[in-house]
Amino acid sequence: MDTAQLMQEAIKARTKAYTPYSHFGVGAALLDAEGHIHHGCNVENAAYGPTNCAERTALFRAVADGHQPGSFQAIAVVGDTEGPISPCGVCRQVLVELCAPDMKVIMGNLKGDIQETTVRDLLPGAFGPSDLKHSDNE
Amino acid sequence: MDTAQLMQEAIKARTKAYTPYSHFGVGAALLDAEGHIHHGCNVENAAYGPTNCAERTALFRAVADGHQPGSFQAIAVVGDTEGPISPCGVCRQVLVELCAPDMKVIMGNLKGDIQETTVRDLLPGAFGPSDLKHSDNE
Amino acid sequence: MDTAQLMQEAIKARTKAYTPYSHFGVGAALLDAEGHIHHGCNVENAAYGPTNCAERTALFRAVADGHQPGSFQAIAVVGDTEGPISPCGVCRQVLVELCAPDMKVIMGNLKGDIQETTVRDLLPGAFGPSDLKHSDNE
Amino acid sequence: MDTAQLMQEAIKARTKAYTPYSHFGVGAALLDAEGHIHHGCNVENAAYGPTNCAERTALFRAVADGHQPGSFQAIAVVGDTEGPISPCGVCRQVLVELCAPDMKVIMGNLKGDIQETTVRDLLPGAFGPSDLKHSDNE
Repeated sequence: MDTAQLMQEAIKARTKAYTPYSHFGVGAALLDAEGHIHHGCNVENAAYGPTNCAERTALFRAVADGHQPGSFQAIAVVGDTEGPISPCGVCRQVLVELCAPDMKVIMGNLKGDIQETTVRDLLPGAFGPSDLKHSDNE
Repeated sequence: MDTAQLMQEAIKARTKAYTPYSHFGVGAALLDAEGHIHHGCNVENAAYGPTNCAERTALFRAVADGHQPGSFQAIAVVGDTEGPISPCGVCRQVLVELCAPDMKVIMGNLKGDIQETTVRDLLPGAFGPSDLKHSDNE
Repeated sequence: MDTAQLMQEAIKARTKAYTPYSHFGVGAALLDAEGHIHHGCNVENAAYGPTNCAERTALFRAVADGHQPGSFQAIAVVGDTEGPISPCGVCRQVLVELCAPDMKVIMGNLKGDIQETTVRDLLPGAFGPSDLKHSDNE
Repeated sequence: MDTAQLMQEAIKARTKAYTPYSHFGVGAALLDAEGHIHHGCNVENAAYGPTNCAERTALFRAVADGHQPGSFQAIAVVGDTEGPISPCGVCRQVLVELCAPDMKVIMGNLKGDIQETTVRDLLPGAFGPSDLKHSDNE
């Protein structure tokens, strides 16, 4: 599956977004090791904090289907932004936890702009599992 | 589908939990209006805050599949707790947002204890969409 | 300090709310064991999820000042709602973690309506520290 | 106030951390425009998701005290990590919201290692307020 196809899946996923507060829908499409796609959209909440983003919806559901962290091939994300949409910090932290550092992240918008990056470049020097384990208290 | 069957699905979902930090796996099974099941498990994060619970994984993925908020029939949740497991406050807030107030919530543990409640009873006098809309600033 | 005074402090705290997205300001005033007040307001985020509520701001800062979980006397919360404002599920979960079950929670609005409840009644059968500890995996 | 002094304040703040689950305490010290210090520590939760980090505690309390987003001078963060501690993605997203892009972020550990970066470099191409505003739906 190429980049353009994965982005098309993200655009489809975006149509399911639940955004009564921001009216800002985002879609994501995650490609697993077997070449299957997992759709995600953002799901908002009146209390804001419990809101979940599209990228995380796709990642969490894939884990719930038994896919191993680190096994994913790529994720595409799309929103109605001026340039390609950028994942928020929470999603970047979840990407670091569940994806390989060099996994491809494809960011786009509805006008067709596309930009590619990697998990590592989205969260340079990320806080991760190894940091927790160093502590004397552990 | 009866309560015992839905709980069995939650137990299956629990086997996929990603819990390297707490080692406390939780599973959820959400029954949609058409009688289909959506599995969820908790997915933890080294940074703790981005951790997602089983109930929310099930709810978010069902929304991403196009199910309408308010249309779900029931959710079962299970963990290795002494009594039936209780949803956390974040999940209760998401249940309030995405489910009917009288939707059934079935809580269980691995020993087979089961307790039933409703979304409304889990979060009495919940903060919800109507509260946000009253504001003069809106 | 009586209920009306604590509510006045919550109203003062509300003036500092950072709410560029919802325009829905909330204030909180936490009374510690020594009778001092800790102000909190909501602080929003473009990504919604990292938004923090007023109650949590007050609780987190009091802990950072060395106050022991369980030692607080009361908290007042206020927003521009039709009836007395209700804490969200995330805040209820944090109240359960950091406050005694019978601690007083005073909810109000700008019209002067006031309602009192307790931490326990806000999150019946709450998931708490003891649930985590039961697990075989711990 | 120099870097070493601000780091000393973060180390003091760390002593207040509430970490019954990870036993991984983090401290933060935020320097405001007037040269005053705001302490923060992490405050954990049995439900993991409502956990708050040290950096956010410091930032939220400073906003609650009336300090304007964008007005802060620097923040220091410290934990018991092998190298200088790195802020999680959630905190980076909050830094982007509340601090100038070139604000200094000082990361350290208990062995005295120190590294400096900026808000901008912690979250390259961050999702921010301007992204939300572009949407046709707004």
